[in-house]
Amino acid sequence: METIPILKVGDCLLISIQVDMHDRLAMSLQNHITEQVVKHHARGVMIDISALEMVDSFIGRVLGSIAAMTRVLGAETVVVGMRPAVAITLVELGLSLGTLRTALNVEVGMELLGSLIDASTGGAFRERQAD
Amino acid sequence: METIPILKVGDCLLISIQVDMHDRLAMSLQNHITEQVVKHHARGVMIDISALEMVDSFIGRVLGSIAAMTRVLGAETVVVGMRPAVAITLVELGLSLGTLRTALNVEVGMELLGSLIDASTGGAFRERQAD
Repeated sequence: METIPILKVGDCLLISIQVDMHDRLAMSLQNHITEQVVKHHARGVMIDISALEMVDSFIGRVLGSIAAMTRVLGAETVVVGMRPAVAITLVELGLSLGTLRTALNVEVGMELLGSLIDASTGGAFRERQAD
Repeated sequence: METIPILKVGDCLLISIQVDMHDRLAMSLQNHITEQVVKHHARGVMIDISALEMVDSFIGRVLGSIAAMTRVLGAETVVVGMRPAVAITLVELGLSLGTLRTALNVEVGMELLGSLIDASTGGAFRERQAD
């Protein structure tokens, strides 16, 4: 089973990474996410990594690329659910996630995503959600 | 990586099954979901099986058990994202998912979940969501 499902929740896409990411899977995920952002006119992308016991420089770079690609397409990306041990390792190894936004869990991530989208649309997103 | 993440989205729990379910993993998922339903006072559980290429009688039984268990705890369960090939195989093999509720995707599933919860709470859920 070598595809990671992309779930559409409102204006956002939700991706839960549960398998080790090798090169081909990462490339396929990038393509898949960008296609879905365009197809669904998504405004936000949330990537849950709570199942990942390890985030190395490769995965970090892939997550950063996905965020940069979706931003060009008009969608903000937030990574949620990072385990404490992963955060410790990232800092100890001196790996940086660059400009990647992170949040504790899906709920906090949704709020962050809402305010990021707000900032880029001048409040139109929250007003639409409140309708 | 032998745990399936359970994401809390509002009053609901969202689970995306992406790995083959063997006995121990299924039991652990059942326990994990029921614990999280109680912990978060969840009203709905959505299980996405769009990554599963095959649903056999074992997985069908596990999904049915999870739905029955969460119902006792006050939460409705909806299974979403079944592939056409899976639906064909289920019917051809004469497997029944019992009283398990299914929906095409997360969005339709959320609506179904909303109306199921509504029916059991007399409309309180939708009113709360509309606030």
